[in-house]
Amino acid sequence: MLSASYVAPRTIEVGEAAVLPPGPGEVQIAVAYAGICGTDLHVFHGDMDARVATPAVIGHEMSGLVAAVGAGVGGWDVGDAVTVMPLVWDGTCPACRAGHQHVCQHLDFVGIDSPGALQGRWNVRADLLVGLPAGLSLRHAALVEPVAVAVHDVRRSELAAGDRAVVLGGGPIGVLIAVVARDAGAEVLVVEPDPGRRAMIEGFGLRAVDPGETDLVGVVESWTGGAGADVVFEVSGAAAAVLSATAVAKVRGTVVVVAIHPQPKPVDLQRVFWRELRLLGARVYERTDFERAVELLASGVVPADAVISEVVPLTAVADAFTALESGRAMKILVDCQVADR
Amino acid sequence: MLSASYVAPRTIEVGEAAVLPPGPGEVQIAVAYAGICGTDLHVFHGDMDARVATPAVIGHEMSGLVAAVGAGVGGWDVGDAVTVMPLVWDGTCPACRAGHQHVCQHLDFVGIDSPGALQGRWNVRADLLVGLPAGLSLRHAALVEPVAVAVHDVRRSELAAGDRAVVLGGGPIGVLIAVVARDAGAEVLVVEPDPGRRAMIEGFGLRAVDPGETDLVGVVESWTGGAGADVVFEVSGAAAAVLSATAVAKVRGTVVVVAIHPQPKPVDLQRVFWRELRLLGARVYERTDFERAVELLASGVVPADAVISEVVPLTAVADAFTALESGRAMKILVDCQVADR
Ligand SMILES: [Zn+2]
Ligand SMILES: [Zn+2]
Repeated sequence: MLSASYVAPRTIEVGEAAVLPPGPGEVQIAVAYAGICGTDLHVFHGDMDARVATPAVIGHEMSGLVAAVGAGVGGWDVGDAVTVMPLVWDGTCPACRAGHQHVCQHLDFVGIDSPGALQGRWNVRADLLVGLPAGLSLRHAALVEPVAVAVHDVRRSELAAGDRAVVLGGGPIGVLIAVVARDAGAEVLVVEPDPGRRAMIEGFGLRAVDPGETDLVGVVESWTGGAGADVVFEVSGAAAAVLSATAVAKVRGTVVVVAIHPQPKPVDLQRVFWRELRLLGARVYERTDFERAVELLASGVVPADAVISEVVPLTAVADAFTALESGRAMKILVDCQVADR
Repeated sequence: MLSASYVAPRTIEVGEAAVLPPGPGEVQIAVAYAGICGTDLHVFHGDMDARVATPAVIGHEMSGLVAAVGAGVGGWDVGDAVTVMPLVWDGTCPACRAGHQHVCQHLDFVGIDSPGALQGRWNVRADLLVGLPAGLSLRHAALVEPVAVAVHDVRRSELAAGDRAVVLGGGPIGVLIAVVARDAGAEVLVVEPDPGRRAMIEGFGLRAVDPGETDLVGVVESWTGGAGADVVFEVSGAAAAVLSATAVAKVRGTVVVVAIHPQPKPVDLQRVFWRELRLLGARVYERTDFERAVELLASGVVPADAVISEVVPLTAVADAFTALESGRAMKILVDCQVADR
């Protein structure tokens, strides 16, 4: 089989690798599609070299078919369509003991901290598998993981039907949050500077505005009858958006911190105090979010074909990273079926 | 009678004023004691000149006796011991309609936005009065308002018995939060640089550490078995404390933003995301907090005598401000009984 390994900043090597049988408790998956996300791009740029042991087969958004079942594994058969929830927790840390395993203090994020999906065959712990229903294509199923992020973010916000939500940042996760929030009954406004992304978002029937050309506070004030937004999702990572987030939230409103902010950013704590705002961090997902994401994709709530910008073969995986770097692609999938030979 | 008016930065004038009868719906209070707080000090410094119409009789922490009852007022008799919850809301804004009147979008904070307690007789809307029980001295009752702030902050945090709480800043509000949190069953650690304040806090049986000489993260880690604090109260207003707050909070822990931060401050949003923290703004109080504060003072939970550093007559009110500026005083009361003549 072929596998793609991150070996050094900006260098991914595709090469032959031996197919090893699944170990006890593992399932071997013939990987169909793997999505590339912003975190993978950070790895590609070398920003996560302290965490990633090279050569590293990365990739944690995927779909595939069970190809072999290891000893002691029940419930899975060869040919089953599956995805993987790529979290392994220790079960013993204070966070795990408090029931928050998904943010375990020693979390192994599969595809970063341990080998991932960018290969023809992938041996994975069986308890990470999530089954896919008939009728959900493997292409669309490669979006389950990012949709689960969006489901988790919306669930964490406690958004209710009828709420007005602002999504700051219209990249893949922002778009998916907007779609999931709308499905939950919210009216949604997406704030995104890129005109191509705004056009796509409007194509989904969502409202999108350019922060550079909009008095965002004024727009939200008039939209909400002077109240402010019930929920704001900060998905952009931009300093200006962090300040906008508190500026547009209603009294007792919720701001969900979804984006990665490597350095501390100025937050309007006076506004947090004055309006008794609630800022919530939201990271990855729990199994319920993964299962809900499968449902949302299977039922067509997520406009998967539009979100998938391009599919490249594993042999051209470097192209996926450079296309993603351009900032115009939404979601790029890597076809790993060509690697299974 | 005498009244004390803020007229210009660093200038409070004490002078004769006519005693006017209470209007319809009002009660006239013979003010006993008025406390001076950090907000009053901001007024004194001229920082709030845009909001305060001079000459301004300020003061919103107080106790007194009903001296006269206006037309249409029931339920209050001359001689009743009372305090005032100094909030007037419009009842019509989105925040009020959502049930959050205490953070009304057009809140009139009595004693800042309208005349306050630093006078011999004070005419106040009857619906702002809160009755005091027999056995609670008028001196101690002047602390009801700041204790209500602490009760509100602790209630907002959803702190539970057995929780471990860190209070960043051991000034009057920090000390009261610590006392209220302990009464709610929490173990409390107060972080305060001033050795005199630390000694006082330790005198209350609370643990206090110097942030300059403590590896605070290490202390909290070992105290909490590696988990982090359940609740952190940021009461200091210091930039370093804002970063400490997120550093010492457990996974899914709560940081309550109590202090005033006039300018946006760097917040470790990566930590907020990574640990799925919750940051909550908490401002003023609701009536339930005021009533609970009365109970906590009446039952002796609050070490009121130790918190009251000094009592000065209204004729020397300027001394109260300069003593408070020194930073060593905890709570200074102004005896307004001398003004009622
Ligand atoms: Zn754990
Ligand atoms: Zn209001």
